[in-house]
Amino acid sequence: MSMKVVVAGGAGYIGSHVVRELLRTKKYEIVILDNLSTGHKESVPAGVQLEIGDIRDRAFLDATFSKHRPQAVFHLCASISVGDSVKDPLSYYENNVSGTVTLLQSMVAHDVKYFVFSSTAAIFGFPERSPISEDDNQSPINPYGDTKLAVETLLKWVDNAHNLKFVCLRYFNACGADETGEIGEDHADETHLIPLILQVPLGKRQKIFIFGDDYNTLDGTCIRDYVHVSDIALAHIYAVEHLAKTGKSDRFNLGSGKGYSVKEIVDAARKVTGHAIPAEIKERRAGDPDSLVAASTKAEEVLGWKRKYVSVEAIVASAWKWHTTHPNGYHK
Amino acid sequence: MSMKVVVAGGAGYIGSHVVRELLRTKKYEIVILDNLSTGHKESVPAGVQLEIGDIRDRAFLDATFSKHRPQAVFHLCASISVGDSVKDPLSYYENNVSGTVTLLQSMVAHDVKYFVFSSTAAIFGFPERSPISEDDNQSPINPYGDTKLAVETLLKWVDNAHNLKFVCLRYFNACGADETGEIGEDHADETHLIPLILQVPLGKRQKIFIFGDDYNTLDGTCIRDYVHVSDIALAHIYAVEHLAKTGKSDRFNLGSGKGYSVKEIVDAARKVTGHAIPAEIKERRAGDPDSLVAASTKAEEVLGWKRKYVSVEAIVASAWKWHTTHPNGYHK
Repeated sequence: MSMKVVVAGGAGYIGSHVVRELLRTKKYEIVILDNLSTGHKESVPAGVQLEIGDIRDRAFLDATFSKHRPQAVFHLCASISVGDSVKDPLSYYENNVSGTVTLLQSMVAHDVKYFVFSSTAAIFGFPERSPISEDDNQSPINPYGDTKLAVETLLKWVDNAHNLKFVCLRYFNACGADETGEIGEDHADETHLIPLILQVPLGKRQKIFIFGDDYNTLDGTCIRDYVHVSDIALAHIYAVEHLAKTGKSDRFNLGSGKGYSVKEIVDAARKVTGHAIPAEIKERRAGDPDSLVAASTKAEEVLGWKRKYVSVEAIVASAWKWHTTHPNGYHK
Repeated sequence: MSMKVVVAGGAGYIGSHVVRELLRTKKYEIVILDNLSTGHKESVPAGVQLEIGDIRDRAFLDATFSKHRPQAVFHLCASISVGDSVKDPLSYYENNVSGTVTLLQSMVAHDVKYFVFSSTAAIFGFPERSPISEDDNQSPINPYGDTKLAVETLLKWVDNAHNLKFVCLRYFNACGADETGEIGEDHADETHLIPLILQVPLGKRQKIFIFGDDYNTLDGTCIRDYVHVSDIALAHIYAVEHLAKTGKSDRFNLGSGKGYSVKEIVDAARKVTGHAIPAEIKERRAGDPDSLVAASTKAEEVLGWKRKYVSVEAIVASAWKWHTTHPNGYHK
């Protein structure tokens, strides 16, 4: 039996990979909802419906839910730059919090039962220990993290009042690209490490900057938890299946239990691309914890999530395939 | 020199008292902004401008701020029932969080510099100690408290990004009425203790219910911190003066350092009204902490706040004056 689902933000980086994985199961009827502010129409597969509009627009949402009557919503619409959130916190709250409130109001009004929410490692701020478990202390250190935590808190109350069951998936460092090389990362203002590194062998950048090599880590550079975007996408499917099966709301950290330092990622990119990729050490940036690594135990045990991509070289290779075939992203 | 201020929610219970105290100083030019959903037009003093509209309406806010060019906003618009917030959390987030985001966006666009925000004891949930200090652990136990805490968090980021200076005033139990007896508490669905008690001598209610007499307090009934609404109103003036003088954002608990039990309040009402006021003990309600009392030291030391009403009889007497002269509130 197929389930009808809305992927809000389904034309974005992670959303487009969720759509691909949903299609592969052949068990879902998919509607993408996206305002295309940062998403790409070109990422939408043939045959998948796209409703263009904004989650802050209640009338648009009501019309979309009335028309399609989905059972579940994956909510991947958000403003995602930590730096921008510090400069313009109100637009982050408007889009990420007020927008989600409107989306949930429309869902409740249309009796949509399941909600899978894109949360983030940023809710943990400077973590008290590593790897980070789901219930560890949550103290964001930027507005972006606070907007995501505000929604996690709200969801508990919406479940309580309206029986809307949710799963929060906290992404750590999403990276890589679909194995086909047809979709991948294409942000107007790229801030993610792997695409930035790969701009060097692509001839778009002379060298890569490493911000700080005096962190309390083995090689002095920051350690992050890199998880392949297709593995993250699969977790969304496990999440909605979990909701349909158990009817229990929950929260999961999507990590690997193992981090890589910036230098290790640069080395992996050198291996994969065969390019020297010169690196220059710069000053630390404010607000970077030494290490952000998630325990993946709970997602594995409760959801049955199992990552397909375990080596960092395989992750970088998948990104490299996308970038070499799409050097200008979705724009020819 | 006079300062132009907007009192958002200025036709409400606390807002109308803020307006009265502002008028008494003769130092402020006042514009009330209220959607009159729970506020009362009748509470607006002659000569004070009232702009009728909603904080969720950006166009209305922009027009109001363009027209009046205030230097400060007192933000007292909010949905305030803990019980309703549990039943309908999304409308609480929409009004209290999304509405405040819109209000702040319009303020930033119109260069309004100071913001005094109505926060609440509810941000502390079950307090870890008593009396509660400003930086004690904040863990709300209902959506109402979470919406207020979300705004307190947001304000830190708005100050950081836009230099908008704020004071959060955490109200404990606001009660009583202006000494003139001209304005007072008039809620469509009254949930506050003192007005409920006074409904008995007013002949509107046979007896008062006391929910639980087995709490860990001297007489077994819950202890709360009752502060006269005119004293709370005066704190708003001290707050905006503090902002104008120091340019420093801050947060204050508005308590008395001393709580009263429900039984003590009933006794005070018996003394003031000369009525026996029968009371019946009922089961505890969920989510009621034994005691919620604030340390008032910081507001006294930093703002120079000094309460005029210290005896609970004086507080109840002021409420009684309002209710006896306005047995149906603002409606004749």
